[in-house]
Amino acid sequence: MFEQLGLIGCGLMGGSFALAMKRAGLVKRVVGYSKSPSTTERARQMGVIDVEAPSALLAVSGADLVLLAVPVSASEATFKAIRHLITSNMLVMDVGSTKRDVVDAARKVLRDNVGCFVPAHPIAGKEVSGVEHADADLYTGKQVILTPIEKTQVGHLKKATDLWEAIGCHVQQMAPEAHDAAFAAVSHLPHLLAFALVHAINNQPQGKEFLGLAGPGFRDSTRIAASDPKMWRDVLLANRHELVEQAKMFSRSLHNMLIAAEQGDGEKLEAMITLASESRAHWRMGQKPK
Amino acid sequence: MFEQLGLIGCGLMGGSFALAMKRAGLVKRVVGYSKSPSTTERARQMGVIDVEAPSALLAVSGADLVLLAVPVSASEATFKAIRHLITSNMLVMDVGSTKRDVVDAARKVLRDNVGCFVPAHPIAGKEVSGVEHADADLYTGKQVILTPIEKTQVGHLKKATDLWEAIGCHVQQMAPEAHDAAFAAVSHLPHLLAFALVHAINNQPQGKEFLGLAGPGFRDSTRIAASDPKMWRDVLLANRHELVEQAKMFSRSLHNMLIAAEQGDGEKLEAMITLASESRAHWRMGQKPK
Repeated sequence: MFEQLGLIGCGLMGGSFALAMKRAGLVKRVVGYSKSPSTTERARQMGVIDVEAPSALLAVSGADLVLLAVPVSASEATFKAIRHLITSNMLVMDVGSTKRDVVDAARKVLRDNVGCFVPAHPIAGKEVSGVEHADADLYTGKQVILTPIEKTQVGHLKKATDLWEAIGCHVQQMAPEAHDAAFAAVSHLPHLLAFALVHAINNQPQGKEFLGLAGPGFRDSTRIAASDPKMWRDVLLANRHELVEQAKMFSRSLHNMLIAAEQGDGEKLEAMITLASESRAHWRMGQKPK
Repeated sequence: MFEQLGLIGCGLMGGSFALAMKRAGLVKRVVGYSKSPSTTERARQMGVIDVEAPSALLAVSGADLVLLAVPVSASEATFKAIRHLITSNMLVMDVGSTKRDVVDAARKVLRDNVGCFVPAHPIAGKEVSGVEHADADLYTGKQVILTPIEKTQVGHLKKATDLWEAIGCHVQQMAPEAHDAAFAAVSHLPHLLAFALVHAINNQPQGKEFLGLAGPGFRDSTRIAASDPKMWRDVLLANRHELVEQAKMFSRSLHNMLIAAEQGDGEKLEAMITLASESRAHWRMGQKPK
Protein backbone atom coordinates (compact mmCIF):
# COMPACT_ATOMS: atom_id res chain seq x y z
CA MET A 1 0.00 0.00 0.00
CA PHE A 2 1.34 3.42 -0.97
CA GLU A 3 0.44 6.65 0.74
CA GLN A 4 0.78 8.94 -2.22
CA LEU A 5 1.31 8.48 -5.93
CA GLY A 6 2.91 11.39 -7.71
CA LEU A 7 1.72 11.08 -11.28
CA ILE A 8 3.60 13.05 -13.90
CA GLY A 9 1.62 12.91 -17.10
CA CYS A 10 -2.12 12.33 -16.68
CA GLY A 11 -2.76 10.89 -20.16
CA LEU A 12 -3.94 7.47 -21.24
CA MET A 13 -1.10 5.49 -19.67
CA GLY A 14 -0.70 7.50 -16.48
CA GLY A 15 -4.42 7.95 -15.95
CA SER A 16 -5.09 4.25 -16.43
CA PHE A 17 -2.36 3.41 -13.91
CA ALA A 18 -3.88 5.74 -11.32
CA LEU A 19 -7.34 4.25 -11.84
CA ALA A 20 -6.01 0.70 -11.56
CA MET A 21 -4.04 1.51 -8.38
CA LYS A 22 -7.08 3.14 -6.80
CA ARG A 23 -9.41 0.32 -7.72
CA ALA A 24 -7.00 -2.22 -6.23
CA GLY A 25 -6.81 -0.17 -3.04
CA LEU A 26 -3.07 0.19 -3.45
CA VAL A 27 -2.79 3.95 -3.04
CA LYS A 28 -4.43 6.43 -0.73
CA ARG A 29 -3.97 9.62 -2.68
CA VAL A 30 -2.93 10.58 -6.20
CA VAL A 31 -1.32 13.95 -6.86
CA GLY A 32 -1.12 14.61 -10.57
CA TYR A 33 0.62 16.96 -12.94
CA SER A 34 0.32 17.37 -16.68
CA LYS A 35 2.04 19.87 -18.93
CA SER A 36 -1.35 21.13 -20.00
CA PRO A 37 -3.33 22.49 -16.99
CA SER A 38 -6.60 21.56 -18.68
CA THR A 39 -5.52 17.91 -18.74
CA THR A 40 -4.68 18.00 -15.03
CA GLU A 41 -8.03 19.60 -14.28
CA ARG A 42 -9.85 17.07 -16.42
CA ALA A 43 -8.04 14.24 -14.62
CA ARG A 44 -9.18 15.58 -11.26
CA GLN A 45 -12.75 16.04 -12.45
CA MET A 46 -12.78 12.45 -13.68
CA GLY A 47 -11.45 11.18 -10.35
CA VAL A 48 -8.24 9.92 -11.94
CA ILE A 49 -6.22 12.11 -9.57
CA ASP A 50 -7.24 13.61 -6.25
CA VAL A 51 -5.09 16.72 -6.22
CA GLU A 52 -3.73 18.89 -9.04
CA ALA A 53 -0.07 19.81 -8.72
CA PRO A 54 1.13 23.01 -10.39
CA SER A 55 4.48 21.45 -11.33
CA ALA A 56 6.14 18.07 -11.72
CA LEU A 57 8.28 18.84 -8.68
CA LEU A 58 5.24 19.49 -6.51
CA ALA A 59 3.60 16.29 -7.72
CA VAL A 60 6.59 14.43 -6.30
CA SER A 61 6.56 16.23 -2.97
CA GLY A 62 5.40 13.85 -0.27
CA ALA A 63 4.99 10.89 -2.63
CA ASP A 64 6.28 7.40 -1.85
CA LEU A 65 5.56 6.30 -5.43
CA VAL A 66 6.25 8.35 -8.54
CA LEU A 67 5.20 7.43 -12.06
CA LEU A 68 6.55 9.21 -15.10
CA ALA A 69 4.00 8.78 -17.86
CA VAL A 70 5.41 11.26 -20.35
CA PRO A 71 6.73 10.85 -23.91
CA VAL A 72 10.14 9.15 -23.69
CA SER A 73 11.84 12.24 -25.10
CA ALA A 74 10.63 14.19 -22.07
CA SER A 75 12.24 11.79 -19.59
CA GLU A 76 15.47 13.70 -19.07
CA ALA A 77 13.75 17.05 -18.57
CA THR A 78 11.27 15.44 -16.20
CA PHE A 79 13.99 13.78 -14.11
CA LYS A 80 15.73 17.17 -13.93
CA ALA A 81 12.53 18.86 -12.80
CA ILE A 82 11.98 16.44 -9.93
CA ARG A 83 15.45 15.31 -8.86
CA HIS A 84 15.68 17.67 -5.87
CA LEU A 85 12.79 15.96 -4.14
CA ILE A 86 13.67 12.38 -5.02
CA THR A 87 14.79 10.34 -2.03
CA SER A 88 16.18 6.86 -2.00
CA ASN A 89 13.13 5.27 -0.38
CA MET A 90 10.79 6.65 -3.00
CA LEU A 91 9.91 4.18 -5.79
CA VAL A 92 10.15 5.91 -9.17
CA MET A 93 8.98 4.21 -12.38
CA ASP A 94 8.19 5.11 -15.96
CA VAL A 95 6.00 3.46 -18.60
CA GLY A 96 8.03 4.28 -21.71
CA SER A 97 8.09 2.08 -24.82
CA THR A 98 11.86 2.37 -25.08
CA LYS A 99 14.19 1.71 -22.20
CA ARG A 100 17.81 2.42 -23.09
CA ASP A 101 17.22 6.13 -23.60
CA VAL A 102 15.17 6.42 -20.41
CA VAL A 103 17.78 4.52 -18.40
CA ASP A 104 20.51 6.78 -19.81
CA ALA A 105 18.54 9.86 -18.79
CA ALA A 106 17.94 8.47 -15.29
CA ARG A 107 21.63 7.61 -14.82
CA LYS A 108 22.70 11.02 -16.01
CA VAL A 109 20.25 13.07 -13.95
CA LEU A 110 19.50 11.03 -10.83
CA ARG A 111 23.12 9.88 -10.28
CA ASP A 112 23.36 8.47 -6.75
CA ASN A 113 19.59 8.24 -6.51
CA VAL A 114 19.23 6.18 -9.70
CA GLY A 115 18.78 3.07 -7.53
CA CYS A 116 15.21 4.10 -6.70
CA PHE A 117 14.25 4.14 -10.38
CA VAL A 118 12.74 0.94 -11.76
CA PRO A 119 12.31 1.28 -15.55
CA ALA A 120 9.02 -0.27 -16.60
CA HIS A 121 7.25 -0.90 -19.88
CA PRO A 122 3.70 -2.20 -19.65
CA ILE A 123 2.77 -3.85 -22.98
CA ALA A 124 -0.56 -2.14 -23.22
CA GLY A 125 -1.94 0.83 -25.04
CA LYS A 126 -4.65 2.14 -27.24
CA GLU A 127 -4.63 3.93 -30.55
CA VAL A 128 -6.35 6.84 -28.82
CA SER A 129 -4.65 9.07 -26.27
CA GLY A 130 -5.66 11.43 -23.51
CA VAL A 131 -7.06 11.11 -20.01
CA GLU A 132 -10.60 10.77 -21.38
CA HIS A 133 -9.64 7.28 -22.57
CA ALA A 134 -8.04 6.28 -19.25
CA ASP A 135 -9.25 2.83 -18.26
CA ALA A 136 -8.72 0.92 -15.01
CA ASP A 137 -8.54 -2.27 -17.08
CA LEU A 138 -5.91 -1.13 -19.58
CA TYR A 139 -3.18 -3.15 -17.83
CA THR A 140 -5.25 -6.14 -16.74
CA GLY A 141 -3.72 -9.38 -17.98
CA LYS A 142 -0.92 -7.58 -19.81
CA GLN A 143 2.83 -8.09 -19.54
CA VAL A 144 5.08 -5.57 -17.87
CA ILE A 145 8.79 -5.57 -18.63
CA LEU A 146 11.05 -4.23 -15.91
CA THR A 147 14.58 -3.38 -17.02
CA PRO A 148 16.62 -2.91 -13.84
CA ILE A 149 20.23 -1.75 -14.08
CA GLU A 150 23.15 -2.67 -11.84
CA LYS A 151 22.39 0.14 -9.37
CA THR A 152 18.68 -0.61 -9.03
CA GLN A 153 17.77 -1.37 -5.40
CA VAL A 154 16.51 -4.91 -4.93
CA GLY A 155 13.85 -3.69 -2.52
CA HIS A 156 12.42 -1.27 -5.06
CA LEU A 157 12.50 -3.90 -7.77
CA LYS A 158 10.50 -6.22 -5.52
CA LYS A 159 7.99 -3.49 -4.68
CA ALA A 160 7.57 -2.64 -8.36
CA THR A 161 7.02 -6.29 -9.24
CA ASP A 162 4.43 -6.75 -6.49
CA LEU A 163 2.63 -3.58 -7.49
CA TRP A 164 2.23 -4.50 -11.18
CA GLU A 165 1.19 -8.02 -10.26
CA ALA A 166 -1.38 -6.63 -7.84
CA ILE A 167 -3.07 -4.75 -10.67
CA GLY A 168 -3.21 -7.90 -12.77
CA CYS A 169 0.00 -7.86 -14.82
CA HIS A 170 2.58 -10.53 -15.60
CA VAL A 171 6.02 -9.18 -14.82
CA GLN A 172 9.28 -10.07 -16.56
CA GLN A 173 12.78 -8.68 -16.27
CA MET A 174 15.09 -7.93 -19.16
CA ALA A 175 18.17 -5.83 -19.83
CA PRO A 176 17.27 -2.45 -21.37
CA GLU A 177 19.18 -3.32 -24.57
CA ALA A 178 17.43 -6.69 -24.97
CA HIS A 179 14.12 -4.95 -24.38
CA ASP A 180 14.74 -2.40 -27.10
CA ALA A 181 15.82 -5.06 -29.61
CA ALA A 182 12.71 -7.16 -28.97
CA PHE A 183 10.29 -4.26 -29.13
CA ALA A 184 11.81 -2.90 -32.29
CA ALA A 185 10.68 -6.20 -33.86
CA VAL A 186 7.25 -6.71 -32.34
CA SER A 187 6.05 -3.17 -31.68
CA HIS A 188 8.05 -0.33 -33.17
CA LEU A 189 8.40 -1.83 -36.64
CA PRO A 190 4.70 -2.84 -36.80
CA HIS A 191 3.79 0.74 -35.94
CA LEU A 192 6.16 2.10 -38.57
CA LEU A 193 4.72 -0.27 -41.21
CA ALA A 194 1.17 0.78 -40.37
CA PHE A 195 2.11 4.47 -40.56
CA ALA A 196 3.92 3.95 -43.87
CA LEU A 197 1.04 1.96 -45.37
CA VAL A 198 -1.59 4.58 -44.55
CA HIS A 199 0.80 7.33 -45.62
CA ALA A 200 1.42 5.66 -48.99
CA ILE A 201 -2.29 5.16 -49.68
CA ASN A 202 -3.02 8.80 -48.85
CA ASN A 203 -0.27 9.91 -51.20
CA GLN A 204 -2.10 8.47 -54.22
CA PRO A 205 -4.63 10.45 -56.27
CA GLN A 206 -7.20 7.69 -55.71
CA GLY A 207 -6.27 7.19 -52.06
CA LYS A 208 -9.64 8.28 -50.70
CA GLU A 209 -11.56 6.03 -53.10
CA PHE A 210 -9.36 3.14 -52.01
CA LEU A 211 -9.85 3.87 -48.31
CA GLY A 212 -13.61 3.90 -48.81
CA LEU A 213 -13.40 0.29 -49.96
CA ALA A 214 -11.18 -1.03 -47.19
CA GLY A 215 -12.56 -3.75 -44.96
CA PRO A 216 -11.90 -5.55 -41.66
CA GLY A 217 -8.37 -6.67 -42.61
CA PHE A 218 -7.32 -3.08 -43.20
CA ARG A 219 -9.17 -1.95 -40.08
CA ASP A 220 -7.25 -4.29 -37.78
CA SER A 221 -3.88 -4.19 -39.47
CA THR A 222 -3.80 -0.37 -39.39
CA ARG A 223 -5.48 0.28 -36.04
CA ILE A 224 -2.12 1.28 -34.58
CA ALA A 225 -1.55 3.78 -37.42
CA ALA A 226 -3.95 6.09 -35.56
CA SER A 227 -1.55 6.24 -32.59
CA ASP A 228 -0.27 9.49 -31.15
CA PRO A 229 2.25 11.05 -33.58
CA LYS A 230 4.47 12.78 -31.00
CA MET A 231 4.73 9.74 -28.79
CA TRP A 232 5.62 7.51 -31.74
CA ARG A 233 8.00 10.01 -33.29
CA ASP A 234 9.90 9.83 -30.00
CA VAL A 235 9.83 6.05 -29.76
CA LEU A 236 11.00 5.59 -33.35
CA LEU A 237 13.77 8.15 -32.88
CA ALA A 238 14.88 6.75 -29.54
CA ASN A 239 15.14 3.21 -30.88
CA ARG A 240 16.17 3.98 -34.44
CA HIS A 241 19.22 1.75 -34.56
CA GLU A 242 17.32 -1.39 -33.63
CA LEU A 243 14.41 -0.24 -35.76
CA VAL A 244 16.56 0.12 -38.87
CA GLU A 245 17.97 -3.39 -38.31
CA GLN A 246 14.48 -4.84 -38.04
CA ALA A 247 13.28 -2.88 -41.07
CA LYS A 248 16.14 -4.36 -43.10
CA MET A 249 15.16 -7.90 -42.19
CA PHE A 250 11.53 -7.14 -42.90
CA SER A 251 12.36 -5.60 -46.27
CA ARG A 252 14.31 -8.71 -47.21
CA SER A 253 11.32 -10.93 -46.50
CA LEU A 254 9.02 -8.54 -48.35
CA HIS A 255 11.36 -8.36 -51.32
CA ASN A 256 11.67 -12.15 -51.54
CA MET A 257 7.90 -12.57 -51.46
CA LEU A 258 7.44 -9.95 -54.17
CA ILE A 259 10.08 -11.55 -56.37
CA ALA A 260 8.38 -14.92 -55.97
CA ALA A 261 5.04 -13.33 -56.93
CA GLU A 262 6.51 -11.52 -59.92
CA GLN A 263 8.18 -14.67 -61.16
CA GLY A 264 4.97 -16.63 -60.67
CA ASP A 265 6.82 -18.88 -58.22
CA GLY A 266 3.75 -20.03 -56.29
CA GLU A 267 5.65 -22.72 -54.43
CA LYS A 268 8.16 -20.34 -52.89
CA LEU A 269 5.49 -17.74 -52.17
CA GLU A 270 3.26 -20.30 -50.48
CA ALA A 271 6.15 -21.63 -48.39
CA MET A 272 6.91 -18.15 -47.06
CA ILE A 273 3.24 -17.37 -46.37
CA THR A 274 2.81 -20.75 -44.67
CA LEU A 275 5.68 -20.06 -42.27
CA ALA A 276 4.08 -16.76 -41.30
CA SER A 277 0.54 -18.09 -41.19
CA GLU A 278 1.36 -21.06 -38.98
CA SER A 279 3.47 -18.99 -36.65
CA ARG A 280 0.75 -16.37 -36.27
CA ALA A 281 -2.08 -18.91 -35.97
CA HIS A 282 -0.33 -20.55 -33.01
CA TRP A 283 0.78 -17.33 -31.38
CA ARG A 284 -0.87 -16.41 -28.09
CA MET A 285 -0.31 -13.07 -26.43
CA GLY A 286 2.04 -13.36 -23.48
CA GLN A 287 3.29 -16.85 -24.36
CA LYS A 288 6.63 -17.68 -25.89
CA PRO A 289 6.06 -19.99 -28.90
CA LYS A 290 7.44 -23.53 -28.55
CA MET B 1 -36.43 -16.13 -53.55
CA PHE B 2 -34.31 -18.84 -55.12
CA GLU B 3 -35.31 -22.46 -55.43
CA GLN B 4 -31.86 -23.99 -55.26
CA LEU B 5 -28.38 -22.70 -54.51
CA GLY B 6 -25.58 -24.70 -56.03
CA LEU B 7 -22.64 -24.04 -53.74
CA ILE B 8 -19.21 -24.93 -55.05
CA GLY B 9 -16.76 -24.68 -52.18
CA CYS B 10 -18.28 -25.16 -48.71
CA GLY B 11 -15.57 -23.30 -46.77
CA LEU B 12 -15.74 -20.14 -44.70
CA MET B 13 -16.97 -17.85 -47.48
CA GLY B 14 -19.34 -20.26 -49.20
CA GLY B 15 -20.68 -21.74 -45.99
CA SER B 16 -21.35 -18.30 -44.52
CA PHE B 17 -23.20 -17.30 -47.68
CA ALA B 18 -25.42 -20.40 -47.52
CA LEU B 19 -26.20 -19.75 -43.84
CA ALA B 20 -27.04 -16.09 -44.50
CA MET B 21 -29.28 -16.97 -47.46
CA LYS B 22 -31.12 -19.60 -45.44
CA ARG B 23 -31.59 -17.35 -42.44
CA ALA B 24 -33.00 -14.60 -44.67
CA GLY B 25 -35.40 -17.11 -46.23
CA LEU B 26 -33.95 -16.43 -49.67
CA VAL B 27 -33.30 -19.99 -50.74
CA LYS B 28 -35.26 -23.23 -50.39
CA ARG B 29 -32.48 -25.76 -50.83
CA VAL B 30 -28.69 -25.72 -50.87
CA VAL B 31 -26.81 -28.37 -52.80
CA GLY B 32 -23.12 -28.24 -51.97
CA TYR B 33 -19.88 -29.59 -53.31
CA SER B 34 -16.35 -29.31 -51.95
CA LYS B 35 -13.17 -30.82 -53.32
CA SER B 36 -12.73 -32.69 -50.07
CA PRO B 37 -15.70 -35.02 -49.43
CA SER B 38 -15.21 -34.68 -45.66
CA THR B 39 -15.82 -30.92 -45.96
CA THR B 40 -19.01 -31.50 -47.92
CA GLU B 41 -20.17 -34.01 -45.32
CA ARG B 42 -19.30 -31.67 -42.48
CA ALA B 43 -21.23 -28.86 -44.20
CA ARG B 44 -24.32 -31.07 -44.41
CA GLN B 45 -24.01 -32.20 -40.81
CA MET B 46 -23.79 -28.55 -39.74
CA GLY B 47 -26.88 -27.65 -41.77
CA VAL B 48 -24.89 -25.34 -44.03
CA ILE B 49 -26.01 -27.36 -47.06
CA ASP B 50 -28.99 -29.69 -47.41
CA VAL B 51 -27.67 -32.09 -50.01
CA GLU B 52 -24.13 -33.26 -50.81
CA ALA B 53 -23.27 -33.26 -54.50
CA PRO B 54 -20.57 -35.66 -55.70
CA SER B 55 -19.24 -33.15 -58.25
CA ALA B 56 -19.31 -29.45 -59.04
CA LEU B 57 -21.41 -30.22 -62.12
CA LEU B 58 -24.04 -32.02 -60.07
CA ALA B 59 -24.14 -29.16 -57.57
CA VAL B 60 -25.17 -26.91 -60.44
CA SER B 61 -27.83 -29.28 -61.80
CA GLY B 62 -31.26 -27.83 -61.10
CA ALA B 63 -29.90 -24.67 -59.43
CA ASP B 64 -31.20 -21.19 -60.23
CA LEU B 65 -28.34 -19.64 -58.23
CA VAL B 66 -24.72 -20.81 -58.30
CA LEU B 67 -21.94 -19.55 -56.06
CA LEU B 68 -18.30 -20.31 -56.71
CA ALA B 69 -16.51 -20.01 -53.39
CA VAL B 70 -13.18 -21.53 -54.41
CA PRO B 71 -9.63 -20.13 -54.47
CA VAL B 72 -9.39 -17.69 -57.39
CA SER B 73 -6.84 -19.92 -59.13
CA ALA B 74 -9.48 -22.67 -59.30
CA SER B 75 -12.00 -20.43 -61.11
CA GLU B 76 -11.16 -21.52 -64.64
CA ALA B 77 -11.22 -25.24 -63.83
CA THR B 78 -14.49 -24.79 -61.94
CA PHE B 79 -16.14 -22.93 -64.81
CA LYS B 80 -15.01 -25.73 -67.13
CA ALA B 81 -16.44 -28.37 -64.82
CA ILE B 82 -19.88 -26.76 -64.73
CA ARG B 83 -20.28 -25.01 -68.08
CA HIS B 84 -22.42 -27.75 -69.66
CA LEU B 85 -25.21 -27.20 -67.18
CA ILE B 86 -25.08 -23.41 -67.06
CA THR B 87 -28.12 -21.79 -68.64
CA SER B 88 -28.67 -18.12 -69.30
CA ASN B 89 -31.35 -17.70 -66.65
CA MET B 90 -29.15 -19.10 -63.91
CA LEU B 91 -27.42 -16.45 -61.78
CA VAL B 92 -23.76 -17.38 -61.28
CA MET B 93 -21.49 -15.47 -58.88
CA ASP B 94 -18.14 -15.83 -57.20
CA VAL B 95 -16.66 -14.32 -54.03
CA GLY B 96 -13.03 -13.99 -55.12
CA SER B 97 -10.69 -11.30 -53.79
CA THR B 98 -9.39 -10.55 -57.30
CA LYS B 99 -11.65 -9.87 -60.23
CA ARG B 100 -9.70 -9.46 -63.46
CA ASP B 101 -8.43 -13.03 -63.46
CA VAL B 102 -11.86 -14.45 -62.58
CA VAL B 103 -13.56 -12.36 -65.27
CA ASP B 104 -10.97 -13.54 -67.81
CA ALA B 105 -11.62 -17.16 -66.86
CA ALA B 106 -15.39 -16.66 -67.11
CA ARG B 107 -15.11 -15.01 -70.54
CA LYS B 108 -12.86 -17.73 -71.83
CA VAL B 109 -14.86 -20.69 -70.56
CA LEU B 110 -18.49 -19.54 -70.45
CA ARG B 111 -18.39 -17.65 -73.76
CA ASP B 112 -21.98 -16.90 -74.82
CA ASN B 113 -23.23 -17.69 -71.32
CA VAL B 114 -20.88 -15.24 -69.62
CA GLY B 115 -23.82 -12.81 -69.28
CA CYS B 116 -25.22 -14.86 -66.41
CA PHE B 117 -22.02 -14.42 -64.38
CA VAL B 118 -21.95 -11.52 -61.96
CA PRO B 119 -18.44 -11.24 -60.45
CA ALA B 120 -18.70 -10.41 -56.75
CA HIS B 121 -16.26 -9.62 -53.96
CA PRO B 122 -17.73 -9.35 -50.49
CA ILE B 123 -15.29 -7.38 -48.29
CA ALA B 124 -15.49 -9.82 -45.43
CA GLY B 125 -13.39 -12.63 -44.14
CA LYS B 126 -11.69 -14.14 -41.18
CA GLU B 127 -8.15 -15.20 -40.53
CA VAL B 128 -9.46 -18.73 -40.00
CA SER B 129 -10.80 -20.88 -42.80
CA GLY B 130 -13.05 -23.90 -43.16
CA VAL B 131 -16.76 -24.61 -42.87
CA GLU B 132 -16.49 -24.95 -39.08
CA HIS B 133 -16.02 -21.15 -38.96
CA ALA B 134 -18.97 -20.43 -41.27
CA ASP B 135 -21.09 -17.68 -39.80
CA ALA B 136 -24.48 -16.35 -40.96
CA ASP B 137 -23.31 -12.89 -39.90
CA LEU B 138 -20.00 -12.82 -41.78
CA TYR B 139 -21.45 -10.55 -44.48
CA THR B 140 -23.78 -8.45 -42.32
CA GLY B 141 -23.06 -4.76 -42.75
CA LYS B 142 -20.17 -5.40 -45.13
CA GLN B 143 -19.56 -4.01 -48.59
CA VAL B 144 -19.89 -6.14 -51.69
CA ILE B 145 -18.23 -5.05 -54.91
CA LEU B 146 -19.85 -6.27 -58.12
CA THR B 147 -17.68 -5.95 -61.22
CA PRO B 148 -20.00 -6.50 -64.21
CA ILE B 149 -18.56 -6.63 -67.72
CA GLU B 150 -20.15 -5.42 -70.94
CA LYS B 151 -21.93 -8.76 -71.54
CA THR B 152 -23.39 -9.06 -68.04
CA GLN B 153 -27.19 -9.26 -68.16
CA VAL B 154 -28.86 -6.33 -66.47
CA GLY B 155 -31.48 -8.63 -64.96
CA HIS B 156 -28.84 -10.79 -63.31
CA LEU B 157 -26.97 -7.75 -62.05
CA LYS B 158 -30.19 -6.50 -60.44
CA LYS B 159 -30.91 -9.90 -58.89
CA ALA B 160 -27.38 -10.10 -57.52
CA THR B 161 -27.64 -6.61 -56.03
CA ASP B 162 -30.98 -7.37 -54.39
CA LEU B 163 -29.69 -10.63 -52.99
CA TRP B 164 -26.61 -9.17 -51.31
CA GLU B 165 -28.63 -6.27 -49.96
CA ALA B 166 -31.19 -8.71 -48.59
CA ILE B 167 -28.50 -10.38 -46.49
CA GLY B 168 -27.40 -7.03 -45.13
CA CYS B 169 -24.65 -5.86 -47.48
CA HIS B 170 -23.92 -2.51 -49.12
CA VAL B 171 -23.43 -3.07 -52.83
CA GLN B 172 -21.18 -1.07 -55.16
CA GLN B 173 -20.21 -1.54 -58.77
CA MET B 174 -16.72 -1.11 -60.19
CA ALA B 175 -14.77 -2.19 -63.23
CA PRO B 176 -12.69 -5.32 -62.55
CA GLU B 177 -9.45 -3.39 -63.19
CA ALA B 178 -10.38 -0.58 -60.80
CA HIS B 179 -11.34 -3.18 -58.21
CA ASP B 180 -7.99 -4.90 -58.45
CA ALA B 181 -6.06 -1.64 -58.18
CA ALA B 182 -7.98 -0.57 -55.08
CA PHE B 183 -7.71 -3.90 -53.30
CA ALA B 184 -4.02 -4.20 -54.03
CA ALA B 185 -3.70 -1.07 -51.86
CA VAL B 186 -6.14 -1.76 -49.02
CA SER B 187 -6.16 -5.54 -48.79
CA HIS B 188 -3.51 -7.45 -50.73
CA LEU B 189 -0.57 -5.27 -49.70
CA PRO B 190 -1.63 -5.23 -46.01
CA HIS B 191 -1.75 -9.03 -46.09
CA LEU B 192 1.66 -9.20 -47.75
CA LEU B 193 3.13 -6.82 -45.14
CA ALA B 194 1.71 -8.89 -42.30
CA PHE B 195 3.08 -12.11 -43.82
CA ALA B 196 6.49 -10.52 -44.38
CA LEU B 197 6.63 -9.08 -40.85
CA VAL B 198 5.87 -12.40 -39.15
CA HIS B 199 8.20 -14.18 -41.58
CA ALA B 200 11.05 -11.80 -40.80
CA ILE B 201 10.62 -12.16 -37.03
CA ASN B 202 10.59 -15.95 -37.30
CA ASN B 203 13.78 -15.84 -39.35
CA GLN B 204 15.73 -14.38 -36.44
CA PRO B 205 17.51 -16.50 -33.83
CA GLN B 206 15.60 -14.67 -31.08
CA GLY B 207 12.32 -14.66 -32.98
CA LYS B 208 10.46 -16.82 -30.47
CA GLU B 209 11.64 -14.72 -27.53
CA PHE B 210 10.46 -11.62 -29.34
CA LEU B 211 7.06 -13.14 -30.17
CA GLY B 212 6.56 -14.03 -26.52
CA LEU B 213 6.77 -10.34 -25.66
CA ALA B 214 4.41 -9.05 -28.35
CA GLY B 215 1.28 -7.24 -27.24
CA PRO B 216 -2.07 -6.00 -28.52
CA GLY B 217 -0.59 -3.85 -31.31
CA PHE B 218 1.17 -6.88 -32.79
CA ARG B 219 -1.93 -9.01 -32.25
CA ASP B 220 -4.18 -6.74 -34.30
CA SER B 221 -1.71 -5.65 -36.95
CA THR B 222 -0.78 -9.26 -37.76
CA ARG B 223 -4.18 -10.95 -37.35
CA ILE B 224 -4.40 -11.31 -41.13
CA ALA B 225 -0.98 -12.99 -41.27
CA ALA B 226 -2.73 -16.15 -40.04
CA SER B 227 -4.84 -16.23 -43.22
CA ASP B 228 -5.03 -19.27 -45.47
CA PRO B 229 -1.70 -19.65 -47.37
CA LYS B 230 -3.09 -21.19 -50.55
CA MET B 231 -5.87 -18.68 -50.90
CA TRP B 232 -3.47 -15.77 -50.40
CA ARG B 233 -0.77 -17.23 -52.61
CA ASP B 234 -3.39 -17.21 -55.37
CA VAL B 235 -4.60 -13.68 -54.65
CA LEU B 236 -1.08 -12.26 -54.55
CA LEU B 237 -0.14 -14.07 -57.76
CA ALA B 238 -3.34 -13.09 -59.56
CA ASN B 239 -2.93 -9.41 -58.71
CA ARG B 240 0.86 -9.20 -58.71
CA HIS B 241 1.18 -6.28 -61.12
CA GLU B 242 -0.98 -3.97 -59.03
CA LEU B 243 0.55 -5.40 -55.86
CA VAL B 244 4.08 -4.60 -56.99
CA GLU B 245 3.03 -1.02 -57.81
CA GLN B 246 1.50 -0.59 -54.36
CA ALA B 247 4.52 -2.17 -52.69
CA LYS B 248 6.78 0.35 -54.44
CA MET B 249 4.78 3.28 -53.14
CA PHE B 250 4.69 1.76 -49.66
CA SER B 251 8.45 1.16 -49.70
CA ARG B 252 9.04 4.80 -50.63
CA SER B 253 7.02 5.99 -47.63
CA LEU B 254 8.78 3.49 -45.38
CA HIS B 255 12.19 4.47 -46.68
CA ASN B 256 11.50 8.18 -46.18
CA MET B 257 10.36 7.61 -42.61
CA LEU B 258 13.43 5.51 -41.83
CA ILE B 259 15.74 8.13 -43.33
CA ALA B 260 14.06 10.80 -41.22
CA ALA B 261 14.51 8.63 -38.12
CA GLU B 262 18.15 7.84 -38.91
CA GLN B 263 18.92 11.51 -39.48
CA GLY B 264 17.14 12.44 -36.28
CA ASP B 265 14.75 14.59 -38.32
CA GLY B 266 11.88 14.52 -35.84
CA GLU B 267 9.94 17.21 -37.65
CA LYS B 268 9.75 15.30 -40.91
CA LEU B 269 9.06 12.02 -39.16
CA GLU B 270 6.28 13.56 -37.10
CA ALA B 271 4.71 15.16 -40.19
CA MET B 272 4.57 11.80 -41.97
CA ILE B 273 3.18 10.00 -38.93
CA THR B 274 0.62 12.75 -38.41
CA LEU B 275 -0.69 12.39 -41.96
CA ALA B 276 -1.16 8.67 -41.41
CA SER B 277 -2.52 9.00 -37.88
CA GLU B 278 -5.13 11.61 -38.76
CA SER B 279 -6.23 9.73 -41.86
CA ARG B 280 -6.60 6.48 -39.94
CA ALA B 281 -8.27 8.10 -36.92
CA HIS B 282 -11.00 9.55 -39.15
CA TRP B 283 -11.42 6.46 -41.30
CA ARG B 284 -14.68 4.55 -40.96
CA MET B 285 -15.22 1.23 -42.63
CA GLY B 286 -17.45 1.54 -45.68
CA GLN B 287 -17.18 5.32 -45.90
CA LYS B 288 -15.11 7.26 -48.38
CA PRO B 289 -13.05 9.88 -46.48
CA LYS B 290 -13.92 13.51 -47.19
